[in-house]
Amino acid sequence: MRLSLNQATIKRATVAEAVDVCVRHGIGSIGLWREPVAEHGLDKTARLVEEAGLRVSSLCRGGFFTGVDQREALADNRKAIDEAAALKADCLVLVPGGVSDRDLIGARARVADAVAVLAPYAADAGVRLAIEPMHPVFCADRGVVSTLGQALDLAAPFPADVVGVVVDALHVWWDPDLPAQITRAAGRIFSYQVCDWITPLPADVLLGRGLPGDGHIDLPWLTGLVAPFYSGDVEVEVFNADVWAADFSEVAADVVRRHAAGWAACG
Amino acid sequence: MRLSLNQATIKRATVAEAVDVCVRHGIGSIGLWREPVAEHGLDKTARLVEEAGLRVSSLCRGGFFTGVDQREALADNRKAIDEAAALKADCLVLVPGGVSDRDLIGARARVADAVAVLAPYAADAGVRLAIEPMHPVFCADRGVVSTLGQALDLAAPFPADVVGVVVDALHVWWDPDLPAQITRAAGRIFSYQVCDWITPLPADVLLGRGLPGDGHIDLPWLTGLVAPFYSGDVEVEVFNADVWAADFSEVAADVVRRHAAGWAACG
Repeated sequence: MRLSLNQATIKRATVAEAVDVCVRHGIGSIGLWREPVAEHGLDKTARLVEEAGLRVSSLCRGGFFTGVDQREALADNRKAIDEAAALKADCLVLVPGGVSDRDLIGARARVADAVAVLAPYAADAGVRLAIEPMHPVFCADRGVVSTLGQALDLAAPFPADVVGVVVDALHVWWDPDLPAQITRAAGRIFSYQVCDWITPLPADVLLGRGLPGDGHIDLPWLTGLVAPFYSGDVEVEVFNADVWAADFSEVAADVVRRHAAGWAACG
Repeated sequence: MRLSLNQATIKRATVAEAVDVCVRHGIGSIGLWREPVAEHGLDKTARLVEEAGLRVSSLCRGGFFTGVDQREALADNRKAIDEAAALKADCLVLVPGGVSDRDLIGARARVADAVAVLAPYAADAGVRLAIEPMHPVFCADRGVVSTLGQALDLAAPFPADVVGVVVDALHVWWDPDLPAQITRAAGRIFSYQVCDWITPLPADVLLGRGLPGDGHIDLPWLTGLVAPFYSGDVEVEVFNADVWAADFSEVAADVVRRHAAGWAACG
């Protein structure tokens, strides 16, 4: 698998700096986020990555579908789909959203409803929607889709080139049903993201991600499971205060080394 | 369901104080922990709860089976089984243990091995072993059994009156397969524990438990799922710094009120 750097791994970098870091370190692909892209300008970013010869492995993020009134979320997601099309992103990542008023079943139903509304729009735009199953630690406040199997159930009614899934190591590594579900996901894996589960967790669990190899996930094993069913980039996405504080270029060099070593033990 | 108070909910209380609080508030059952029981004396505790007319809904805890050398863990678990027998506890809770050296699959296999070794010993002692599936946030460092389905798979080879499961709301509430697995668990649910998932999580995620009704779990719904398959006590087990700091008697009174209200919305 070829390497991609998600720009959130070097969060302080502007789009221009992130693109420059990728080029200098021979990283052929980048994962972009909507907010920094908007800051740099959408069309300007599209030209920048194209002229740099970079692939855009993903755009983060659409989703947040679980509010009772979905109109605003749907409008924003159509905008995100347009942005993904302009950037020629390999997929738009959908973060499902959390629970409101203790209604987990209702929240999950609203995710399905929203995907049904957006799928035709995405198909017309030539954008692939990647539903991201999220670690159950985020079920209450961020992502009610908790397993890869559940994400595949949500994707199943739609064409396999329009609605698929993200396999993010951090979110799925614990799942006892993972090997079977990855096999089932064949043709629907739109993104493979890696980072590591570290302990102790920091005070903000959202930043509880280590560089691949620094934690408890057997990433060579997981990558081996995904590889037969996925031909895209492996994207390194790390939210971590220490990584964010480090020099961009050093972080990129470190990521390249770990990728070359097959995500073997570094910790 | 009749109410039980897990003594960890009023962590600063001694065994004697916890028993006294239960009696004064008409709580007919208590969940005990091995360390405070040892402090008070095992036989003395057994007499105390018997004379107070309390049931012992559970003893916490055995388990931690995932080390490569299991001898020490097995010896300690036999001791825990003896203690559960002496206390006439309804079950011994088994916390599986975490991942060593990134080997999640091996860790899970070692849990199965240990249960196979301990089941005959527990049967002889008349003690029921309750495997506790744990929220995936604890997979790395505390519990590699992550779903109720997985716990039932582990229990299945053994007699249904010897090896079963704990259904702890905090650990299982997010599971999309929960209703089906609770039905499947009929006859194997040895303990039902309630607390709530609160946000934001505190810095120590282990203490991220609210009193039932204070968080995002639909406890009336979950209790309704469990009730047809379970005739034991509903045990309130809350690890929470604010609850621990509060007056024992007020906490017990609050728990009794919430139980009487059917764990309806309090937050």
